[in-house]
Amino acid sequence: MGKASLGIPKGTRDHSPEKVIKRNYIFNTIRAVFERFGFQPIETPSFENLSTLTGKYGDEGDKLIFKILNSGNFLKGSQLSEAAEELYKLDAGRLPKEALVKLNQYGAQLSEKALRYDLTVPFARYVVMHQNDLQFPFKRYQIQPVWRADRPQKGRYREFFQCDVDIIGSDSLVNEVELVMIFDEALSNLGIEDFTVKLNNRKILAGLVEHIGASDQFMAVTIALDKFDKIGNDGVRNELKKLELSDESIHTLLDILAFEGDAQAKLNQLSGILTGSELGMKGIEEMQFIFDKLAGLEIRNAKLDLDIKLARGLNYYTGCIFEVSAGGVDIGSICGGGRYDDLTGIFGLPNVSGVGISFGADRIYDVMEALELFEDIKTSASDLLICCLDNESQTAALQILQKLRSNGIDSEIYPDVAKLKKQMKYAGNRGVSYALLIGSRELEEQCYSLKNMQTGEQMSLSLEDIIKKIKH
Amino acid sequence: MGKASLGIPKGTRDHSPEKVIKRNYIFNTIRAVFERFGFQPIETPSFENLSTLTGKYGDEGDKLIFKILNSGNFLKGSQLSEAAEELYKLDAGRLPKEALVKLNQYGAQLSEKALRYDLTVPFARYVVMHQNDLQFPFKRYQIQPVWRADRPQKGRYREFFQCDVDIIGSDSLVNEVELVMIFDEALSNLGIEDFTVKLNNRKILAGLVEHIGASDQFMAVTIALDKFDKIGNDGVRNELKKLELSDESIHTLLDILAFEGDAQAKLNQLSGILTGSELGMKGIEEMQFIFDKLAGLEIRNAKLDLDIKLARGLNYYTGCIFEVSAGGVDIGSICGGGRYDDLTGIFGLPNVSGVGISFGADRIYDVMEALELFEDIKTSASDLLICCLDNESQTAALQILQKLRSNGIDSEIYPDVAKLKKQMKYAGNRGVSYALLIGSRELEEQCYSLKNMQTGEQMSLSLEDIIKKIKH
Repeated sequence: MGKASLGIPKGTRDHSPEKVIKRNYIFNTIRAVFERFGFQPIETPSFENLSTLTGKYGDEGDKLIFKILNSGNFLKGSQLSEAAEELYKLDAGRLPKEALVKLNQYGAQLSEKALRYDLTVPFARYVVMHQNDLQFPFKRYQIQPVWRADRPQKGRYREFFQCDVDIIGSDSLVNEVELVMIFDEALSNLGIEDFTVKLNNRKILAGLVEHIGASDQFMAVTIALDKFDKIGNDGVRNELKKLELSDESIHTLLDILAFEGDAQAKLNQLSGILTGSELGMKGIEEMQFIFDKLAGLEIRNAKLDLDIKLARGLNYYTGCIFEVSAGGVDIGSICGGGRYDDLTGIFGLPNVSGVGISFGADRIYDVMEALELFEDIKTSASDLLICCLDNESQTAALQILQKLRSNGIDSEIYPDVAKLKKQMKYAGNRGVSYALLIGSRELEEQCYSLKNMQTGEQMSLSLEDIIKKIKH
Repeated sequence: MGKASLGIPKGTRDHSPEKVIKRNYIFNTIRAVFERFGFQPIETPSFENLSTLTGKYGDEGDKLIFKILNSGNFLKGSQLSEAAEELYKLDAGRLPKEALVKLNQYGAQLSEKALRYDLTVPFARYVVMHQNDLQFPFKRYQIQPVWRADRPQKGRYREFFQCDVDIIGSDSLVNEVELVMIFDEALSNLGIEDFTVKLNNRKILAGLVEHIGASDQFMAVTIALDKFDKIGNDGVRNELKKLELSDESIHTLLDILAFEGDAQAKLNQLSGILTGSELGMKGIEEMQFIFDKLAGLEIRNAKLDLDIKLARGLNYYTGCIFEVSAGGVDIGSICGGGRYDDLTGIFGLPNVSGVGISFGADRIYDVMEALELFEDIKTSASDLLICCLDNESQTAALQILQKLRSNGIDSEIYPDVAKLKKQMKYAGNRGVSYALLIGSRELEEQCYSLKNMQTGEQMSLSLEDIIKKIKH
């Protein structure tokens, strides 16, 4: 074995016991809500064929996909002699740039697999592959990690978990309503009380772009709008100028985006403006349905907002889009999602509409940590640690351990017959609730010293009484 | 978006809802035992720095590590011009082999990260990196996927989950005893009643190799023995011949490996033979301790066996080793593990001994499926599906849904107002227990049709009675 360096790749993290327990609390809470709402779990492989992933996330997204090197030799047979020949033809001394391009082209052939970038595209691939085994509408949830070669920064990691729910095979807006209720239920169950679910509709955005006569630039305008939170009004104005929109168009658009009031007020204003756009009016109608249905339901904590600026970066959204942010903390969006009408089409199953949302478990973790919402979660170790006072008592100690465990008590034994002081120090640092001292005298008397590690209180008890006490 | 191919990389799998539920049952059962025994969870990143992983799994293992391409350009700056120049110097037409080697050398520089191959090496790296935050002995469990570029075959996948428990920072053999008890408890809790825990000790193997005068070939002999299950006695004899051991040595060794009887009988025989090997006698003494302690405990199902042929492929084992196989099925080993004395040394923390075991969740899944042990696991969907008979009843249906869910009933709504027949067919295929029919008449009468999907029985009930009935 060679000398190994210490450390982990940038943007990744180790999770300590305390963190794993807190993270599992988040996953379990969200999972329980998904199941309450009738969703079923699936899991897909960590890596997909490269062709499954590329071209789905825009140019920016594609660059962030982690590719896996083909195993064995990197280039093979004819591929290799071809590469060698091509490179040989180049005068590398004079043409380092061409050599560079060529080498990188060959480099790109070294990979046929890539780590998944999100859970939605693998889900679409899954649905098409298994369409004959599924009941449509298919309601699935999926809780798995995704990987992005993003520049690491606070709250942004290269490996992070997504918790997704999607309904595929139904264009009913009842699904959108249900998803908003899932936001409300899951985040409320986690103890988050102050959060806003922002909704918008890509069709409204399309209508607006049509209204200012820039339909051919819809994607580019969307990408500019998506940066609103980061670069503000002036920043977006600059981005739009770069697209060579007229000052008047930009002015009109930014004015509309600045509409104030509740969802109904904004929908009313938009109706007046988008009369000329069939798509825009359809978007308004959809949002009207969703807000009307939500008005009839009991919402626990979610504040609802129609945010006309909301665009969402992903290419595949076509209808209603969602984003959730928590109040009282500066952590950005913690959930997102939207409707996609064509995602399975690319895999050979056209005309199937889907809608889904994703909970960013890592961001939610940060929110809960900031708001001190983990306080009641038990992250400590076992209930009891057995300390042996001599070698002779180890056999009996193992038997006692077995009895404690079969009575539902999480318990362990200090494996070495070390000095009592050392064993007690370990019990204290580990955070166990009780220490149980066993030596030859204790075994003879069938009476053991039980020490409450919090109070320091020490009692001499029979095994039966110890079990009763701890279970109580 | 370009046209995407359908399919997933070979050796990987999609998991349907039913499979995920069964798999989670395995994970949760094993996790509960780990916690009962006082272990705490950690998680490490899916990929590690390449240097953390290479050189730990033997040459064969190293080849199976999945490497991740560096993002951005594959070769950069000076690296690139150097590569181009080197390649230019080669006469590719005449020397395709040299070009091949050179290209593959450059290919190897394209990666600095790799997917983890097991959980033990990342754990050792974790322990060294976080040593100041840990209490030793540190008892951790870890349930995460690992990846190996193995040739896919029945029961062997390129992505699979391991469930590991390790104790690090204690050389007490009490730990080995505890791990055997974990095998017994976890597999018994999963309903597996017929399984054998095979134990051996690398020190005994070292003693045997010393006994036949082949100490300098210990690793090679170990690798040959490791194939016993696959290639049998004659196969191993051939492998040993390749190592140029004398016929007499091979004969002696194979004779010892064929010892019959219970653990005590084998230990007695070995004691007579290995008197000249200090290491061998130490191994015997260790196994005597472990079997003695286990004899004092109540073992639920595990059959214990001292299997002198057991070698385990991994380089880092130094003491007791374990392997578990299930009876009544032909699925190979389902668990394994052993003691490693030096694993953290390579990361800069010497003299820390560890011991651990790993449950192969995928193999265990196959065993349980073969033995039909999943029969009592509920893998069906929600308790109830609401079918709306008209658009007007959707709002009320969503309100009823909310009430059902707040009463702990997993329930959903068919999102479209489709023909009743279609909705009922969906309810049947999904496997929901009840269908609830809601139309304008039902809403007026506050009395809804509840259909038991198994019996076909249909009742007209108030919402309160429905909740009572289903909760019951």
